[in-house]
Amino acid sequence: MPLHVVVMTLFPGMFTGVLGESMLKRAQEAGALTVDLVDFRAYATDRHRTVDDTPYGGGAGMLLKPDPIFAAMDDLRARVGPAGPPDERVILLSPAGRRFNQAVAEEYARSQRLVLLCGHYEGFDDRVRQGLATEELSLGDFVLTGGEIAAMAVIDAVARLLPGVLGNRASAEDESHSSGLLEYPQFTRPAEFRGMRVPETLLSGHHQKIEMWRRRHALYRTWRYRPDLLANAKLSDQDRAWLRQFASGDFSGIDVR
Amino acid sequence: MPLHVVVMTLFPGMFTGVLGESMLKRAQEAGALTVDLVDFRAYATDRHRTVDDTPYGGGAGMLLKPDPIFAAMDDLRARVGPAGPPDERVILLSPAGRRFNQAVAEEYARSQRLVLLCGHYEGFDDRVRQGLATEELSLGDFVLTGGEIAAMAVIDAVARLLPGVLGNRASAEDESHSSGLLEYPQFTRPAEFRGMRVPETLLSGHHQKIEMWRRRHALYRTWRYRPDLLANAKLSDQDRAWLRQFASGDFSGIDVR
Repeated sequence: MPLHVVVMTLFPGMFTGVLGESMLKRAQEAGALTVDLVDFRAYATDRHRTVDDTPYGGGAGMLLKPDPIFAAMDDLRARVGPAGPPDERVILLSPAGRRFNQAVAEEYARSQRLVLLCGHYEGFDDRVRQGLATEELSLGDFVLTGGEIAAMAVIDAVARLLPGVLGNRASAEDESHSSGLLEYPQFTRPAEFRGMRVPETLLSGHHQKIEMWRRRHALYRTWRYRPDLLANAKLSDQDRAWLRQFASGDFSGIDVR
Repeated sequence: MPLHVVVMTLFPGMFTGVLGESMLKRAQEAGALTVDLVDFRAYATDRHRTVDDTPYGGGAGMLLKPDPIFAAMDDLRARVGPAGPPDERVILLSPAGRRFNQAVAEEYARSQRLVLLCGHYEGFDDRVRQGLATEELSLGDFVLTGGEIAAMAVIDAVARLLPGVLGNRASAEDESHSSGLLEYPQFTRPAEFRGMRVPETLLSGHHQKIEMWRRRHALYRTWRYRPDLLANAKLSDQDRAWLRQFASGDFSGIDVR
């Protein structure tokens, strides 16, 4: 069964490029993912298809009314059947939500259906959160015009974890935030480019030395740029010795800062 | 002068929907923003337009070669002229980067040119970071297939801060992460929907009580869902009294949890 992603949005056209290229295109072609874009403006009942209204109590901007989005959800469930959590997650993209991260992506990749509610303007009437959403999710501490780009990030991060989507599983496992460390620096041909040389160890063909170089540099990068990640990383005695070395200001063996 | 955003990407088609709708469309039409999508595959010099190669030292996946992207940047500067920091930022989207947030968006909105380097596959040869990027930026602790969706988030968050883009400036100021608190719950018509009523205070028309209700609920939400934000928020004595009340388990006056 493919993962069924439903996006509730006033701007389905925003998704055209992202869903039609690269990995997300392949994921759909491979039958791992289906995406339904639902324009909930179609569920507005008045002649002008009104989806927004002014907030009670005054204030700038327009709010999204509850009725069209509730009607769109009713129709979805009539069409494809109800599915309770944990199989179905109804995710309201909102700055008040828990922070999206790789653990959340892995959780979502085990669901059967993800419904992503994309607000716009000043967001939804709060009853959408109270009565429809199973959770609120935030991409980070920044303000976007709507939930659409956040939804794309979620779909991308989740889809690549679905079975059969990435040709090379090692590719998904090996990356930053999967190993718990930042990735080591990588290089490809040419060995020298505009005066910058690839570190000798990587050219040596000596596998054990290369593995050690990579681990040491992954640790260095994490220690320097994201020390918070070290708390949850699995570290060996050798790793801890290197970290003590960096902490003492000794960067011997580090070719790439 | 509009903000000039240059996106270096192998998948310019991914941006079609996002740039062609809603706020980003209006920002370009208003002359506040110009976006150049540069497909750096066009700068590959071999017959097959090769942009990737295997990593030195072995391992899964393919790396993006340095030469096409360096050539694309040379060409950009020959066309539009050099611009050093802080006017030009060359931003490598990468999980090792500093975390994108509203303060970074505000910083970028004061630049003249943002160049966003979108990796794909296993990312760029590290010499792109060493020799081209002025900074690395991360959207969050999750793995995306490429930098494109992260670039869209950056463009959206920055563009809405540019002068003349949001019709109603209050709209930008009033939102979460601008005031330092999460936003209070908002409601619009109807006053009752599927058994859920709009809180009476908001229907009262009593402006001072409404302001108080909103502040109290913004504080409650922040205290409950994002207590980390309270450390940097500007708090009044009344705010602090409410926080003490919540901490003691007293939620009187809170209508919406």
